[in-house]
Amino acid sequence: MVPPYRRRGMGSQGFRVNHIALGPGEEFDRIRSIWGRLGGHAAGGGDDCAFVQIGGERLALSIDLSVEGTHFRLGWMSPLEVGWRATSAALSDLAAVAATPAGVLVSLAVPTEWPAEHVTDLMDGVGAAAGAVGAQVWGGDLARGERVTVDVCAIGRLAGAPLLRSGAQAGDELWVTGRLGGPFVALAAWNAGAEPDAMARERFARPVPRIAEAQWLRERGARALIDVSDGLVPDAGHLAAASGVGWTIDADAVPLHPSAETVDVALAGGEEYELLAAVPPGLSDADAAAFGARFGIPLTRVGRADQAEGVRLVRDGKRVWVPETYRHF
Amino acid sequence: MVPPYRRRGMGSQGFRVNHIALGPGEEFDRIRSIWGRLGGHAAGGGDDCAFVQIGGERLALSIDLSVEGTHFRLGWMSPLEVGWRATSAALSDLAAVAATPAGVLVSLAVPTEWPAEHVTDLMDGVGAAAGAVGAQVWGGDLARGERVTVDVCAIGRLAGAPLLRSGAQAGDELWVTGRLGGPFVALAAWNAGAEPDAMARERFARPVPRIAEAQWLRERGARALIDVSDGLVPDAGHLAAASGVGWTIDADAVPLHPSAETVDVALAGGEEYELLAAVPPGLSDADAAAFGARFGIPLTRVGRADQAEGVRLVRDGKRVWVPETYRHF
Repeated sequence: MVPPYRRRGMGSQGFRVNHIALGPGEEFDRIRSIWGRLGGHAAGGGDDCAFVQIGGERLALSIDLSVEGTHFRLGWMSPLEVGWRATSAALSDLAAVAATPAGVLVSLAVPTEWPAEHVTDLMDGVGAAAGAVGAQVWGGDLARGERVTVDVCAIGRLAGAPLLRSGAQAGDELWVTGRLGGPFVALAAWNAGAEPDAMARERFARPVPRIAEAQWLRERGARALIDVSDGLVPDAGHLAAASGVGWTIDADAVPLHPSAETVDVALAGGEEYELLAAVPPGLSDADAAAFGARFGIPLTRVGRADQAEGVRLVRDGKRVWVPETYRHF
Repeated sequence: MVPPYRRRGMGSQGFRVNHIALGPGEEFDRIRSIWGRLGGHAAGGGDDCAFVQIGGERLALSIDLSVEGTHFRLGWMSPLEVGWRATSAALSDLAAVAATPAGVLVSLAVPTEWPAEHVTDLMDGVGAAAGAVGAQVWGGDLARGERVTVDVCAIGRLAGAPLLRSGAQAGDELWVTGRLGGPFVALAAWNAGAEPDAMARERFARPVPRIAEAQWLRERGARALIDVSDGLVPDAGHLAAASGVGWTIDADAVPLHPSAETVDVALAGGEEYELLAAVPPGLSDADAAAFGARFGIPLTRVGRADQAEGVRLVRDGKRVWVPETYRHF
């Protein structure tokens, strides 16, 4: 089972690619070409976000496009959930650099035949997702389009230096928030024509950007951060490549969502919007328990930067090959 | 001849509607309902942009969606022009409040079959349009989609209070930049299956946001501003409604684009991205000539706020009815 789409961060200044069907190599070449041509105009220096100094504030900015048929199908979610999910996905980019959300602007294309209530419901989802993390809805645009399209520009403040993908150092430990596999299980069910179980469905339709969790991790010394949008192993690979380290990940340690029957599902699935953090040794199990008590989700040590590069996956104490379906990094 | 689409400003905090097919009343009800529901989360207070205080700076923000089939057709323009036009349209919202562009973020959906060069060309157009007014391309997102979709979030700085739609006062004169009718003529040709003449085509495919012109108007005392996206009469109507004044517009004074054979075309056409400004009496013909010398486009007095409300159109000194096709305000 392969998820119906994959998304991948760019590791460059605020540019990202959502892709499906096209191989990542080709897509990377394409976006690299774009990026190279735009270099003369471009500012920033981050990963999931662009960073801009405005007045006395350092802002993090990201834009995130969700297209019906590419990123979701209408039968899967209510309009409110479509709005919630698109907005939370954009806000997760702010979490991934430990920024604090300030506001969003949202563009929406809907088919002519959509009833007005669907539009208001969708915007309710946008407003609820933004409001849940203290962000305001600053503006929007509404147009006719054959496919429901939601584009969210998220703007946040940085209380200090952003947490980048490139900050991990040899010896750092790799920690992940939450339990993985739910969105993959939901997608697999939908793709098989079935209705996913409620908890897995919730993880896909109502993702939660880990804003406060990112602040906690920063305060506890996290050196690098990424949100899990491609999947645990690919995103660990992004962190590794950007930082010049390599991870050994203990597959048996990866926390599984209750609906995930095997660890493969947790390793392969994307769209988690959980955080993957590189933290120097010293964060204790008691710290993790405190995190759990505060946020209601676990914080789990899943690996260590003890390799020269890439991701080495260990199961039952033995090295295993990273399955083909999630070796794209 | 009716343009294939109309766009209309909202007169509220950064929310706008691009519409076609649906009546404006219905669309307005729809967006009003959205706005009402979002009110609790919303900041701002402007028209074409939302306004946000960040650090020591006051920012103007706008988001502007262009969808193939709704806002343009691929046969009409090159990918570079699609990128230029979408970006200039978003930047025109900053001109409309006299903000100075700082940066844009752009989301792009393209069909799988689009060659990579089309993507790079389109992004070249984005970069060129941004660079032409001193803005940077801060970030982007690229996704697969059946229809080419370009969404541009434009962020600018305000050097003082923004120029709103609501600032016009009784006795103010109404001035317009540039020559009107080109985009309408281009659209009419395309809709008739013909290729527009080069100058009209240029006005549609390569609109220029009147950033510096807006600053000039502000410095010369302009009290209210809007960009001509719906058309001269509808946009004058928006200014009138927001300001609580009414205009008499002299149709014979309206400056015609060389490709526009009748004034109807200049009155009815939208997508001009020229500016319509309410200025207290005193701006002279010599001032207008100085404007023309500096910017290479005319600045023309076309009306006066001498009515209680709405727009009264005069031709040959006699009142004429505003044609049905552009009476939507």
